[in-house]
Amino acid sequence: MRIADLGEFPLIDRIAQIIATDQADILVGVGDDVAVLAIGNDQLLLATVDSQVEGVHFLRHLSTAYQLGRRALAINLSDIAAMGGQPKFALISLALPKDTEVAWVEDLYRGLRAEADRYRVSIVGGNMARSPDSICVDVTLLGQVKQEQLLLRTGARPGDRVLVTGQLGQAAAGLKLALDPALPLASTERETLLARYLTPEPRLSESAVIARSAQATAMLDVSDGLSSDVGHICDQSGVGVRIWADALPVSLAVRRMAELTGTPWWQLALAGGEDFELCFTTSPDVAEELSATVLQKTGTPVTEVGEILPVEQGRRLVLPDGQEVTLEPSGWEHFRDIKD
Amino acid sequence: MRIADLGEFPLIDRIAQIIATDQADILVGVGDDVAVLAIGNDQLLLATVDSQVEGVHFLRHLSTAYQLGRRALAINLSDIAAMGGQPKFALISLALPKDTEVAWVEDLYRGLRAEADRYRVSIVGGNMARSPDSICVDVTLLGQVKQEQLLLRTGARPGDRVLVTGQLGQAAAGLKLALDPALPLASTERETLLARYLTPEPRLSESAVIARSAQATAMLDVSDGLSSDVGHICDQSGVGVRIWADALPVSLAVRRMAELTGTPWWQLALAGGEDFELCFTTSPDVAEELSATVLQKTGTPVTEVGEILPVEQGRRLVLPDGQEVTLEPSGWEHFRDIKD
Repeated sequence: MRIADLGEFPLIDRIAQIIATDQADILVGVGDDVAVLAIGNDQLLLATVDSQVEGVHFLRHLSTAYQLGRRALAINLSDIAAMGGQPKFALISLALPKDTEVAWVEDLYRGLRAEADRYRVSIVGGNMARSPDSICVDVTLLGQVKQEQLLLRTGARPGDRVLVTGQLGQAAAGLKLALDPALPLASTERETLLARYLTPEPRLSESAVIARSAQATAMLDVSDGLSSDVGHICDQSGVGVRIWADALPVSLAVRRMAELTGTPWWQLALAGGEDFELCFTTSPDVAEELSATVLQKTGTPVTEVGEILPVEQGRRLVLPDGQEVTLEPSGWEHFRDIKD
Repeated sequence: MRIADLGEFPLIDRIAQIIATDQADILVGVGDDVAVLAIGNDQLLLATVDSQVEGVHFLRHLSTAYQLGRRALAINLSDIAAMGGQPKFALISLALPKDTEVAWVEDLYRGLRAEADRYRVSIVGGNMARSPDSICVDVTLLGQVKQEQLLLRTGARPGDRVLVTGQLGQAAAGLKLALDPALPLASTERETLLARYLTPEPRLSESAVIARSAQATAMLDVSDGLSSDVGHICDQSGVGVRIWADALPVSLAVRRMAELTGTPWWQLALAGGEDFELCFTTSPDVAEELSATVLQKTGTPVTEVGEILPVEQGRRLVLPDGQEVTLEPSGWEHFRDIKD
């Protein structure tokens, strides 16, 4: 059987069985985006790795090396933010064809450095290897978190509200625009969407406020698409969910792109991955106050987009017309051809 | 300028300038194989990353997925051994073409797991991404070391002896054999050489003995080839070196391969990379005793192959005929076409 027939998540399940261990110093292991490791002091070590592969995650003519560098670090920063942690050290592993321009590699590192500096991360090493054809940028990020501020996907309880930071669908709209630049859009909208796709903002300040509040019950970042990612919280917390389509925070620019490409706007918001917004759950009586605190301290709005249900009620989506349907995980999955 | 024109080490120098920081918690950063990081307890965190790229580091028809998994972890284990550290946690980042067989990926993980178990390492996470064509296996390994046992490339002093564990040139001979299986060699020699190339042994036990002795002044692992790697000790310790070709530990099988391929045997030992033996320096009055201790505790022989000189005496090689020439770094370098 080929991996394209099996799919990413079943493959990860098989691998998890092969490498399963039951060690006290591994709080979170395979299956999550971030490993949480006890290393013998009052902080936990967080470790995450993500790749950007040419032709799959980026096209050299659509993004500059500088933008790619920022993006490659940002997606890892977002994984650390999703746990309530602080990023510390990065290692960069590059696979490069021999004919790569030195200036391109230097620009990549300038982008990595710029993004690292924004969040006080140090690039401490890495590796360079030759690749036969495409460029691969692999970033390993190490961070730390206080045990009591660690946020996992496991704590959501029926009755909790589901909240997201910022706006959804922007990166997906930006990708559509990058692939079809002729789409008629105002230049400010164009710039915003492209920037959200090319250089997403990891929500580290927002994460710090949420983690310090000790009021969130579960959290992750929206990397595959909300409909898919909220399913990870359901899987690991053993709960169901109801998402309200008309509550999804969607910008006018995304609504316009949805119109231009004949996609329902809420579909773009639910299935569009790579927004790297935070999705978290919290008790209904503190949801409003916590949202207000995040807005006040970071300038980023937080929106209630759904509620956690008992597991037997399943995963549901209330469409804008009031009809309730099953919430299908419809975001990005590697090895299948959903998105490219 | 293309990276092939510049070469790997000048490229790393340029990158080091872009990402340079001067932080107290980074004891060793860019430019070494391993980052050494202070994380606020009595142990230092070690972090290293290495790739195995299809068509560059492995060919799918020459090694099984299981062997590749063992090898991909082993080369990282060797980097941690080179610092006197203990490996702890691994993250595996895979880039895979869509048509990769699931069974191949599972065998890869079985190999990773087998190698991890041998050295009490846990695989705690990673990432999977699609690749347009070749497979890339990127392993990040985290380890720890007590501050007083940390061995760097910086401490070698004129008068110190240069020692290596095990034997040199075996992996290079194994690669030659893998590429040209018709070469007439006895089956036991054939198996030994192929095994040393396909599944090298990281010298973790030997490293632990050397580190605990507190008698080594500098150490690294022989990954690029001794003539190149000993140059890193010279660069970073600010010293010269004299290597004695006729002292290099070379097996009969390697001598036979050297004959068959028309290469001087000492050349194969000096330039052949990927042996992953340890090369270390120590005072001449303890060299013999330390070698005996390593042999006694691990069964691995240690050989004196040269001496550290004042920097102004340069880097020298005494050929078997007594002639002294300049020691040229002649091992593996990425982006150039020396070795493939």
